[in-house]
Amino acid sequence: MASTFGTAYRTTVFGQSHSEAIGCVVEGLPAGLPLDTEALARFMARRAPGQGSWSTPRKEADVPRFVSGVNRDGLTTGTPLCALIENTNTRSQDYKGLDHVPRPGHADFTAHEKWGAAADYAGGGHFSGRLTAPLCVAGGIALQALEAHGIRIAAHLLSVGGVEDEPFAAGGLAAWDPAKLDAQLARVAENPVFTTLSDDAALAMQQEIESARMDLDSVGGVVECVACGLPAGVGEPMFDGLENLLARALFGIPAVKGLEFGAGFKAAGMRGSTHNDPFAAGPDGRPAPVSNTAGGILGGISTGTPVVFRVAVKPTASIGREQRSADYETGSDCPLTVHGRHDPCIAPRAVPVVEAVCACVVLDALLSPSTNIR
Amino acid sequence: MASTFGTAYRTTVFGQSHSEAIGCVVEGLPAGLPLDTEALARFMARRAPGQGSWSTPRKEADVPRFVSGVNRDGLTTGTPLCALIENTNTRSQDYKGLDHVPRPGHADFTAHEKWGAAADYAGGGHFSGRLTAPLCVAGGIALQALEAHGIRIAAHLLSVGGVEDEPFAAGGLAAWDPAKLDAQLARVAENPVFTTLSDDAALAMQQEIESARMDLDSVGGVVECVACGLPAGVGEPMFDGLENLLARALFGIPAVKGLEFGAGFKAAGMRGSTHNDPFAAGPDGRPAPVSNTAGGILGGISTGTPVVFRVAVKPTASIGREQRSADYETGSDCPLTVHGRHDPCIAPRAVPVVEAVCACVVLDALLSPSTNIR
Amino acid sequence: MASTFGTAYRTTVFGQSHSEAIGCVVEGLPAGLPLDTEALARFMARRAPGQGSWSTPRKEADVPRFVSGVNRDGLTTGTPLCALIENTNTRSQDYKGLDHVPRPGHADFTAHEKWGAAADYAGGGHFSGRLTAPLCVAGGIALQALEAHGIRIAAHLLSVGGVEDEPFAAGGLAAWDPAKLDAQLARVAENPVFTTLSDDAALAMQQEIESARMDLDSVGGVVECVACGLPAGVGEPMFDGLENLLARALFGIPAVKGLEFGAGFKAAGMRGSTHNDPFAAGPDGRPAPVSNTAGGILGGISTGTPVVFRVAVKPTASIGREQRSADYETGSDCPLTVHGRHDPCIAPRAVPVVEAVCACVVLDALLSPSTNIR
Amino acid sequence: MASTFGTAYRTTVFGQSHSEAIGCVVEGLPAGLPLDTEALARFMARRAPGQGSWSTPRKEADVPRFVSGVNRDGLTTGTPLCALIENTNTRSQDYKGLDHVPRPGHADFTAHEKWGAAADYAGGGHFSGRLTAPLCVAGGIALQALEAHGIRIAAHLLSVGGVEDEPFAAGGLAAWDPAKLDAQLARVAENPVFTTLSDDAALAMQQEIESARMDLDSVGGVVECVACGLPAGVGEPMFDGLENLLARALFGIPAVKGLEFGAGFKAAGMRGSTHNDPFAAGPDGRPAPVSNTAGGILGGISTGTPVVFRVAVKPTASIGREQRSADYETGSDCPLTVHGRHDPCIAPRAVPVVEAVCACVVLDALLSPSTNIR
Repeated sequence: MASTFGTAYRTTVFGQSHSEAIGCVVEGLPAGLPLDTEALARFMARRAPGQGSWSTPRKEADVPRFVSGVNRDGLTTGTPLCALIENTNTRSQDYKGLDHVPRPGHADFTAHEKWGAAADYAGGGHFSGRLTAPLCVAGGIALQALEAHGIRIAAHLLSVGGVEDEPFAAGGLAAWDPAKLDAQLARVAENPVFTTLSDDAALAMQQEIESARMDLDSVGGVVECVACGLPAGVGEPMFDGLENLLARALFGIPAVKGLEFGAGFKAAGMRGSTHNDPFAAGPDGRPAPVSNTAGGILGGISTGTPVVFRVAVKPTASIGREQRSADYETGSDCPLTVHGRHDPCIAPRAVPVVEAVCACVVLDALLSPSTNIR
Repeated sequence: MASTFGTAYRTTVFGQSHSEAIGCVVEGLPAGLPLDTEALARFMARRAPGQGSWSTPRKEADVPRFVSGVNRDGLTTGTPLCALIENTNTRSQDYKGLDHVPRPGHADFTAHEKWGAAADYAGGGHFSGRLTAPLCVAGGIALQALEAHGIRIAAHLLSVGGVEDEPFAAGGLAAWDPAKLDAQLARVAENPVFTTLSDDAALAMQQEIESARMDLDSVGGVVECVACGLPAGVGEPMFDGLENLLARALFGIPAVKGLEFGAGFKAAGMRGSTHNDPFAAGPDGRPAPVSNTAGGILGGISTGTPVVFRVAVKPTASIGREQRSADYETGSDCPLTVHGRHDPCIAPRAVPVVEAVCACVVLDALLSPSTNIR
Repeated sequence: MASTFGTAYRTTVFGQSHSEAIGCVVEGLPAGLPLDTEALARFMARRAPGQGSWSTPRKEADVPRFVSGVNRDGLTTGTPLCALIENTNTRSQDYKGLDHVPRPGHADFTAHEKWGAAADYAGGGHFSGRLTAPLCVAGGIALQALEAHGIRIAAHLLSVGGVEDEPFAAGGLAAWDPAKLDAQLARVAENPVFTTLSDDAALAMQQEIESARMDLDSVGGVVECVACGLPAGVGEPMFDGLENLLARALFGIPAVKGLEFGAGFKAAGMRGSTHNDPFAAGPDGRPAPVSNTAGGILGGISTGTPVVFRVAVKPTASIGREQRSADYETGSDCPLTVHGRHDPCIAPRAVPVVEAVCACVVLDALLSPSTNIR
Repeated sequence: MASTFGTAYRTTVFGQSHSEAIGCVVEGLPAGLPLDTEALARFMARRAPGQGSWSTPRKEADVPRFVSGVNRDGLTTGTPLCALIENTNTRSQDYKGLDHVPRPGHADFTAHEKWGAAADYAGGGHFSGRLTAPLCVAGGIALQALEAHGIRIAAHLLSVGGVEDEPFAAGGLAAWDPAKLDAQLARVAENPVFTTLSDDAALAMQQEIESARMDLDSVGGVVECVACGLPAGVGEPMFDGLENLLARALFGIPAVKGLEFGAGFKAAGMRGSTHNDPFAAGPDGRPAPVSNTAGGILGGISTGTPVVFRVAVKPTASIGREQRSADYETGSDCPLTVHGRHDPCIAPRAVPVVEAVCACVVLDALLSPSTNIR
């Protein structure tokens, strides 16, 4: 099996929800990069649990310990970096009995079908949302490496249940306005915990989540992400394009069930005359797209306009209500009530995870041998 | 660069729209599989151009020549199979001048930014929809290998522009009805050229396409695909799950801009109590899902219910209308009219391509060392 | 960069000689395998330092801590296993000043040329022989997985300096005698620390090493390894054959400078009539080789006879004598005396490492999708 | 299965000895490289059969046809290049009956064990020395790409049977003399067909081969190869070092059974004080090795001195004498006489193949994202 993605910048994730520790090994980081551990801690904090009523009360320090790949001066050494996060706050008793009664919406069932009884179910095992913590380590480091190239990555909650935030200008079907996007990115940077562009939307979303929580239920959402500053020419045709690499990696985030670039599914209902982004000669005399319906990617390769995509996050599988399941041991149906601590909506905490995965992929593409830009 | 996908069943695609030939190398095919070349030809025919007013009049025999990997008895040898399709009917003069004026919506621009003037633009080069022919060879062979495992794969046009076909029952949010799906698969098998479940939808879609064509324009669509017969337990957690592998490969089909599994983007607006598929004890006493909102995949691993996904196809980038572009040589804006032969809607011909890519990925996952099922 | 090898059974090694910890992540292990940690500890002990005058006095417990991939019952879970070994006994002051004066025979120089001053030199950094400890973890686990398939792997010291042990019968050019090999394997199993077939050779080798040590010098050696019990048909033609995979991995052991299979370099001086292993009908009526000059591999694929290879280990680069080097800071020549604790001959401790790497590769090939044997 | 090697510069080889065609797909070639097809033809000619009494009389034009990846101006396009060589001169009747009686020393037996009767035996199938022709295409192109970086690669016959040529100075254990190596490279360039440094050695080797041929037998040899001009810092630690990548790829050349770098197996008998290459300050004030016992590689990474290695080639498996084999059909022993056209010594024609594989690997390492040198 492969819990690995990336070629030039490669991340291997390990750990189960209730194993001794979780973590990642990162290969391909250039040597001599100063790791800003405080910036990384701030980034990690956005994903951390226990921040509000929409989030699981399980608290974990989630401070990664770099056991290799960094020298005494805090510089990367060019060799594999291993980051370890201890699992200190596990309450496995919450998961008693779950090893033979699969929870609906979880991977307990498929893990049992694949690996049998040896699969470590507790808390979702290797499928747990907790595994997104090491993803944020790998992505947080990638974000720092990308900064030197002038590349910024930001995501926000586009919707929760039926409540919608305003979209990034870059995702619009009309002409792309860099000034408006800059303003939006600044606004997003101000609200690191519950990331939206509109304050009203944030409030309404929190009410939507609270309402689900009161119903012992959960709700889904959509995360929109933008990567700005990529030069044209990054990515490859066919199967290693930006879309392909992002897609493979983003579907590795638990609960992601959909992905679209630029106009996405709306493109299916459009005509070419509206969808095609025209070119105009730029200040340097080279053609450049004047709109961004394509979401910054043509033929898998960056156009120089912001890369824009949206990710659909399903409602949290763990809900407080009784559900119908069946028992591997008795061979008969049985009701199931899932205990433990769970977010009624996972989408808010998925925002930095989407940024992290996007950063890993963009850095990977940027470092790829086929990329001329260094 | 990598025009390769798959690990256990690996496909490498080569060729440009107007190179001498296009083709693929397939590695990992079991030895001793009898190649049914007539069945493959029928499958290839569904993708072939020149079948109706919605399709480019460029006609290519598209008969693959197996230059290696098959023995004199038509059996696979276990060694790499190379299939070659000669490019006999190229009209490169249609593409004169395009090497310095990028066509909107095409990869001409990004190819030039990446590779400079050496990029072979004519007809879209390596990005051309023509490269889906070798994909259909690889996928058509994979379909034959999957048949022995009782796995069927079928796709249909779910929408063109604003016209919608009925969805596969399997994609429904309510309980999954195998009998209804069987009936739908049978109906799809009857209409190999323009694949829909409803005859009325087919007619309306053809009118939609014809209307775009009369407007010198193009239109997009959505393809829905189902893979039936996969046992539970195929795929892996994190980055090599069925969703991840399908996503990476499907975005390699030109014009694909979105992908969703099961309820997909609708899941973002749902509650967990509705989204979670409950389990019930099956005839063998093991749990099995009683509905299929998840689209047959939990944690990247198959549940045993049909795998269901939808792919958004953008409108054909080549349209007859004059468009705005800019000239690399003069450094100034210029109008552009694209000549050549083009489908006003590429979605109908994408249907077998989606099946082909799905077949390659499913076979790859099935042959993976982590799959217990043989 | 890639400190990873294997596809179906994949090992990623991380750590530097003096980082906080070293370790490995192992992917692809079947679920439900009971880890025999005592057997693993015995295997690790053969590689551990501080066992005799030929070995560095640095003592490390080298007890791996399994932070993921194992459940509470000590069974593998099918998900990535991470093993961590803390670096408790580092004496970095021994390496002061070495960051700008490269030690001859070490990778200090090439690391500095590749990564600049950020490279972590102390104790050899990521190139250190200490990184063979996690290799032994991965290999020790692989050995346990291979036992279930009846596959045994054993190595011994074939030579140290000018002193030679008797070779494995299987490596002989004449007919292969299973009974004799069994006797040899039994003898090897009795002397876990200084592994030779002949007791006289062991004594003479220890004298050779002691003599080098007294001269403040070091000496090289050859390790011979055999893998018994592989069925015929494991491996692949061209670039993923057993020879290819073993070669790539074995040259990852520090100090390895040569590798040969079967008759190896002697084959270059032989005639085909002597080199070719004839076939005879076996008890089941199938052909089988009657001798083993090929070292158990034809065309990259196992023949069913033991796989036999030899690995040349260069003399330890760290010697007590003053050597000539140059200073990156002053730009001029300077003498260098290497302090620290070092083995005068690394070959004895390389014996279990060669077994470990061989086990990883053989398990990888056995689990490969192209292998019919399960 | 994988007939593929390389990451940044990736070669996939396809074809069987008697399939319709053989060839390769090359990915990762920079765009805009002018292909010098005449230089490539001259390079291919060195490997071609039918050049002397030591070589098989089978004549093949072996002119590769580039069906993709090259534009009308003969420049590479950056997309996958497919080169096809038709098999026009096959005499399969020579191989009649061989499908159930494996030839000693060949992969017929292991192919049958792996793939069963479907394996295409004729002429060695996918294992045939004929597959080295596409390897020479991939390598010949790589050699052209390396020239722009000032990197030269040359090999010669170091021995045939008991006859030895003088070694490259670079491989010597004493100080490395660039002037002497230049003179040797010039001499090698003069004798493209039977490549030796000494004319006397060439004559004696031809006699050795002729003697084997008269005895209806074959003989082995050793090929020595040098890569000059690599800057320091190319390659990686652990498993993707130059030694690892060269090892994996070189053992893909049929008949290779041994490989050593620098002093190689002799290093096992040496002391560290002799083996370590001292450093001295170079003209630019940076340290540089003053000798080359290491063969230009420390810790998998180039030192800037020439990379030197030797490859052991076993005697041709096909010999005219009657040999002992067994019959899959009858289940009993039977004598076997191999007909067909075969080289009594394959080593002379392996010389350009070793250069080709070396070029592919060096280009791959040079293009790797971890290499700073561009």
